[in-house]
Amino acid sequence: MALPRRHPYKIKMNFEITLPDWAISELEKLPTHIPKLEDRMREVIRFSRLNIEHETGGPFAAGVFEKESGRVVVIGVNRVVPANCSSAHAEIVTLSLAQKILGTWDLGGPDMPEYQFIVNGQPCAMCFGSIPWSGVRDVIVACSGEDVETLTGFDEGPVHPEWVAELEKRGISVTEGVLREEASSVFRDYASSGALVYNGRSGD
Amino acid sequence: MALPRRHPYKIKMNFEITLPDWAISELEKLPTHIPKLEDRMREVIRFSRLNIEHETGGPFAAGVFEKESGRVVVIGVNRVVPANCSSAHAEIVTLSLAQKILGTWDLGGPDMPEYQFIVNGQPCAMCFGSIPWSGVRDVIVACSGEDVETLTGFDEGPVHPEWVAELEKRGISVTEGVLREEASSVFRDYASSGALVYNGRSGD
Repeated sequence: MALPRRHPYKIKMNFEITLPDWAISELEKLPTHIPKLEDRMREVIRFSRLNIEHETGGPFAAGVFEKESGRVVVIGVNRVVPANCSSAHAEIVTLSLAQKILGTWDLGGPDMPEYQFIVNGQPCAMCFGSIPWSGVRDVIVACSGEDVETLTGFDEGPVHPEWVAELEKRGISVTEGVLREEASSVFRDYASSGALVYNGRSGD
Repeated sequence: MALPRRHPYKIKMNFEITLPDWAISELEKLPTHIPKLEDRMREVIRFSRLNIEHETGGPFAAGVFEKESGRVVVIGVNRVVPANCSSAHAEIVTLSLAQKILGTWDLGGPDMPEYQFIVNGQPCAMCFGSIPWSGVRDVIVACSGEDVETLTGFDEGPVHPEWVAELEKRGISVTEGVLREEASSVFRDYASSGALVYNGRSGD
């Protein structure tokens, strides 16, 4: 784990996060539009389950959709361990992919439709903070942060105590509890599989 | 800005963040170790200034160092606009590069030295939340969040009201105000240059 004597700066100073091959195949099979909110969430939950079945990351997935039409921009998954990147939570991966696909760092820019962000578990402290910068206007959550922590042992980190109000103050609506039971069952199965629950400095 | 009729999933579903060429050259010129804390911060501030002079991102830089020895792991910069990625703040970029260089998603893992994270401005809501996951044990800040907002107009987002206590609770020490004046002068110059201050959903 020690650093080499000379730093490897001759290597390309980049980092790259890639979706697993199965996710690309699944995305190609999706309809271009998913009209109903619950069906959008169902797909996000299905991706979270596939991510653990394929052992390609933690039990988290997120999707970006056009809110009105249901057009699918992308569904992404957690890649922390495979990518050796503690920021590669499903939310950061998915928002970054959506911004790449749409060619902008602001999904709330002028002349754009409203984008909806759908996650199977309440965003952690980091991912909560990433939402206002992303430009999405609407956040849909299945399980609460407490569900995630209780069912899996994953730490949500120091989430802002008024996280919903802070997003709503910025013009971002929040809906919680959509298909909560279905999402919980993935977290339960992850925990009972004995798979790695990585956490950082979680304190005592 | 409209999505193509068929989604471009045949393209590689990845996103990649790269340091600008000037930063790679500057990293190659650095000594392997910078023993004094203020000198480490001075380099981070210098990178923040170079990032605006080269027009390769916002006025933010961050560095990861071995705390005791001062060994430089990497210094990175904000890449939001060039990378079309709202999460490409200096902190996320730098922590991700450090994890790539060191080959682990946890800089606080067993048998590793303590890593120190040095930033020219108080981390925003997202970057604050990324710190506990990264494994760093020590955070050094030049300007406060209020300095950043007042001097530049960049929004810090919904930062946790007890952000220092929340990090310290997780075994991460925080020191603020190191070379604050030097860091402020970069923010002042950025603001007076009329360069883009991107913000997401910042509310009213």
